[in-house]
Amino acid sequence: MQLLIPRLLLCLDGNTEVLENHAVLIDGERVAEVGPALTLLAKYPEAEKIELPDQVLMPGLINCHTHAAMNLFRGIADDLALHDWLQTRIWPLEGAHADQEFVYDGTVMSAAEMLLGGTTTFNDMYFYPDQVVQAAIDVGIRVVAGITVIEFPTRYASDANQYIELGLAARDKTLNEATVHWSAAPHAPYTVSDDTFLRLASLAEELNLPIHCHLHETASEVTDAVSRNGVRPFDRLLKLGVINERFMAVHGVHLNDSELAQMSKAGASLVHCPASNLKLASGIAPISTALKAGVNVVVGTDGAASNNKIDMWDEMRLAALLCKGASMDATAWTASEALLGVTNGAAKALGLESVTGRISAGFKADLIAVELDQKPHQSPLHNLVSKLVYSGSARDVAHVWVNGKRVVESQQLVGKSSQLVSQTMRKVTRVWQTRLQ
Amino acid sequence: MQLLIPRLLLCLDGNTEVLENHAVLIDGERVAEVGPALTLLAKYPEAEKIELPDQVLMPGLINCHTHAAMNLFRGIADDLALHDWLQTRIWPLEGAHADQEFVYDGTVMSAAEMLLGGTTTFNDMYFYPDQVVQAAIDVGIRVVAGITVIEFPTRYASDANQYIELGLAARDKTLNEATVHWSAAPHAPYTVSDDTFLRLASLAEELNLPIHCHLHETASEVTDAVSRNGVRPFDRLLKLGVINERFMAVHGVHLNDSELAQMSKAGASLVHCPASNLKLASGIAPISTALKAGVNVVVGTDGAASNNKIDMWDEMRLAALLCKGASMDATAWTASEALLGVTNGAAKALGLESVTGRISAGFKADLIAVELDQKPHQSPLHNLVSKLVYSGSARDVAHVWVNGKRVVESQQLVGKSSQLVSQTMRKVTRVWQTRLQ
Repeated sequence: MQLLIPRLLLCLDGNTEVLENHAVLIDGERVAEVGPALTLLAKYPEAEKIELPDQVLMPGLINCHTHAAMNLFRGIADDLALHDWLQTRIWPLEGAHADQEFVYDGTVMSAAEMLLGGTTTFNDMYFYPDQVVQAAIDVGIRVVAGITVIEFPTRYASDANQYIELGLAARDKTLNEATVHWSAAPHAPYTVSDDTFLRLASLAEELNLPIHCHLHETASEVTDAVSRNGVRPFDRLLKLGVINERFMAVHGVHLNDSELAQMSKAGASLVHCPASNLKLASGIAPISTALKAGVNVVVGTDGAASNNKIDMWDEMRLAALLCKGASMDATAWTASEALLGVTNGAAKALGLESVTGRISAGFKADLIAVELDQKPHQSPLHNLVSKLVYSGSARDVAHVWVNGKRVVESQQLVGKSSQLVSQTMRKVTRVWQTRLQ
Repeated sequence: MQLLIPRLLLCLDGNTEVLENHAVLIDGERVAEVGPALTLLAKYPEAEKIELPDQVLMPGLINCHTHAAMNLFRGIADDLALHDWLQTRIWPLEGAHADQEFVYDGTVMSAAEMLLGGTTTFNDMYFYPDQVVQAAIDVGIRVVAGITVIEFPTRYASDANQYIELGLAARDKTLNEATVHWSAAPHAPYTVSDDTFLRLASLAEELNLPIHCHLHETASEVTDAVSRNGVRPFDRLLKLGVINERFMAVHGVHLNDSELAQMSKAGASLVHCPASNLKLASGIAPISTALKAGVNVVVGTDGAASNNKIDMWDEMRLAALLCKGASMDATAWTASEALLGVTNGAAKALGLESVTGRISAGFKADLIAVELDQKPHQSPLHNLVSKLVYSGSARDVAHVWVNGKRVVESQQLVGKSSQLVSQTMRKVTRVWQTRLQ
C-alpha cells in the first residue's frame, strides 16, 4: 500500500474540484481510498508514505489516437502536402522498414516520451500490435492496441482476414495483462470494405471493444468517396451500423453539422488531433459545433510523423486555444472542459470509464504528480486548472504511477524500463537514423 | 575569450545551413570569429574552451511582442471574451496594482522564464519602462523597452506628454547599457491621437527607434473606427506617415490583402501572436497572405495574461502549424522560414539587424545551446531545423549567452540573477498571489 499526500489533489471525478490536505491510498493496482490526509494516515500506518509537497496529484492524461511506432519517423518528412507526404515519404518508408523490430523500438520510444510527459494511456493503431503491446508492457504504460485492418497487403498481413486473425491472436495472449486493452481498428473508410466494417463491428460487440477509425480527415476523402460511391463516408458507416457508442471517429475535420448531431445521438466520440490537422493542412475540425451538439470530444496526438510531439499537454492546450480562435468565442472549450475531456471523456471513448481517467476508489491507479510553482514558467499559481491547461507542460511532470506501480520518479523512468529506453535510444541514433535515410 | 565547440552549429546567417566541426569565438560582448574547430583551437590557445558535445549552438530566439510584467497575471482571467477580460479583469487589476514594484517583479519573472527557455531578446510594451529595463539588466536578458504612450491617465502618467517625457528620461539613463534598446510604443490607434502618433513618428526618426503598436487585433477595432471616423485604423496610420520600415504592427489579425501589400511596400513588419489571438478569440491572422505579399512576419508571445506561456518555441511552432492549417497549404511557412523569422526577421523588425539574431563575426554574442538527442522526446534527429521548430521545446535549452556573458548554465540561471529570481518567485507566492486576489 502507498499513501500519496500531495499539496493539491485533483480527482477529476466528473468535475474539477481541487482538494487540499487530502491523500490517496493505493492498494496494489487500484486506488483504495481518497480522503483527508490525517484520517488516512491514522487509518493506514503501515502504508508507504509518499509526500508530494510541491505537486498536484491528478489522473494521468489519455492520448486517444497515435501510431506510436512512427516516432522513428519524427522529422523525416515535413512541410509537404498530405499527398506527397504519404505517397513519396511515409508509405515507401513503411513499406521498406515497418517490421516487428521497427514497431517494437518505435513504440518503446513513444511510450517513454508519453510516460515521462504524464500520459498514462494511449490508444494505438499500427501494424504488429503484438509488438506495440510488448513495448507498452516493457515500458510500463497502459495501452489500447488496435486490431488494425486495411484491405491491402503489407509486410504484416496479406488481407483483411489475416489482419483480423493476427490481431485476435495477439489479443488472446494478453488477456491476463492488466494494462493491455484492445480496439477494433478499421483504418479508414477508403481502405476498408463494407464487409470488413461489418465483421469488425460485430467483433467489437462480441468482445466489448471500442472501434477506432480515421474518418473525414481531409476534404478530398469526402469528395472522392462521393464521386466514387455517391455517398459520404460517414453516411456509409452510419448505414452499416458502425456509428454507435463504441465508435471513435479520428480527425473528423470535415464532418458537417448533421453528421455531428448524428454522432451525438449515437453516443460516438470524436478524436480531435489539432496539431496533425494543422501541419498536414487538413483543416480545423468543427470542435465548437461538436461540443454544442453534445459529442464526446477527446484529443489525440496522432503519430510523430505528422505532429511532431507526442505530448498531451501541448495537444490539450492547442485544442482549447484553436476551438476558441476558430469559433471566435473565447468562452468555448474552457480549461475545465478540456481537462475533463482528456481524462474522463477519453476513458469513456475507450470503454475504460470504470478503469482509468479519474482518481476514485476502485479505479486503477494511473496517476501523475505535477510541479506547481517551483520554476519561473510555473509561477504564479492563481488557478490550478488554468495552469494545467494553458501553461502546463510535460517538463512539469515529476512522478507517474500506472496500474498502481510507480514508473517515473523525479522525471526519470524507474527500474528495467530505464535501461530499455536508454538502449533503444542509442539504437535509434546508431541504427535507425542511418537505416531510414 | 570563450571558444564554443558544439556538435552542430546553426549560424542562421541568412540561411539554415548546419555546420559540423565548427567553433565560435566570443571576445567580450561579440562573436569574433566562426570557423573550423581545429583552426580556431590552434589560433586561440588562450581562450576558455567550452565543449558542447550534445548540443546545437544557435542564435537566441527573439520575442517581438510582450508585456513582461503581466506574468504576475498568468492564469488570473481565462475563458473570457476579450471585452470582459479587459474591462472586468485586466484593467481593474492594472489600475489597482500595476505600480513600479509590480512591473519590476513581473518583468524579473518573465525575463527568467524567457532566458531559461532560450529567448535572449524581448520587445516590451508596458508602464514604468524604467523598471522593465532594470529587471532585464538584473536578470541578464536583452530588452527593447517601449516609450509607451496612451492618451488616458494611469498610475504611471497623466497624459501623452508625460508618458513621452518619462519614457525619454528612462532611455537617457540607459544610453550606455549594451543590452538595452528602445522603441516608440504608441499603444494602439484607439488609444492614441493623431498628434501623438506624429510626435512619436518623428521621435522614432530622430532617435532611430522602431515603432511598436497594436493594430487591427479584433474585427470590432476596425468596424468601431470606421463607424466613428469613417476610416480604417491602418489607413489612418498610413495617411499619418507612420507605416514605414520602422513600423511593427502587432497582431494584424484583421489586415486585408491591400493593407498587407502596403505593409510590404513600406517595409513594415507584422508581429504575429497566434496563441493570444486564438485564446482571446480575436481570430487567425492572414499570415500566408502576408508572407506571399513579402511582409516581414515575426512572432511574439503577447503577455502571460492572454497566452499563458512566454515560450518562443511554442509560439514559433504554433505560428508555423496555424499558417498551414488556416491556408490549407502544408508547404506554407516552412520550418526554415519560421526559424529565420524568429531570429533574422525579428532582429530586422527591431532595428537590431546588425546587433543580434545571427551568429556572425561582429554581432553581439546572444547564443543558445540546445540538446539534440539525449531524451526520448528529442529522438530521433533526422532533420535539425524540423527538430527545432516542430519538436523543440524550452526544456531542451541547456546554456544561454547574452551579450557574450553566460547567463544560463545547465538549465540554471548563473550568479546573482539566480538569487534574485528565487527571491522574487517566493515573493510572488507569498505576496502577489494574495494581493492580486
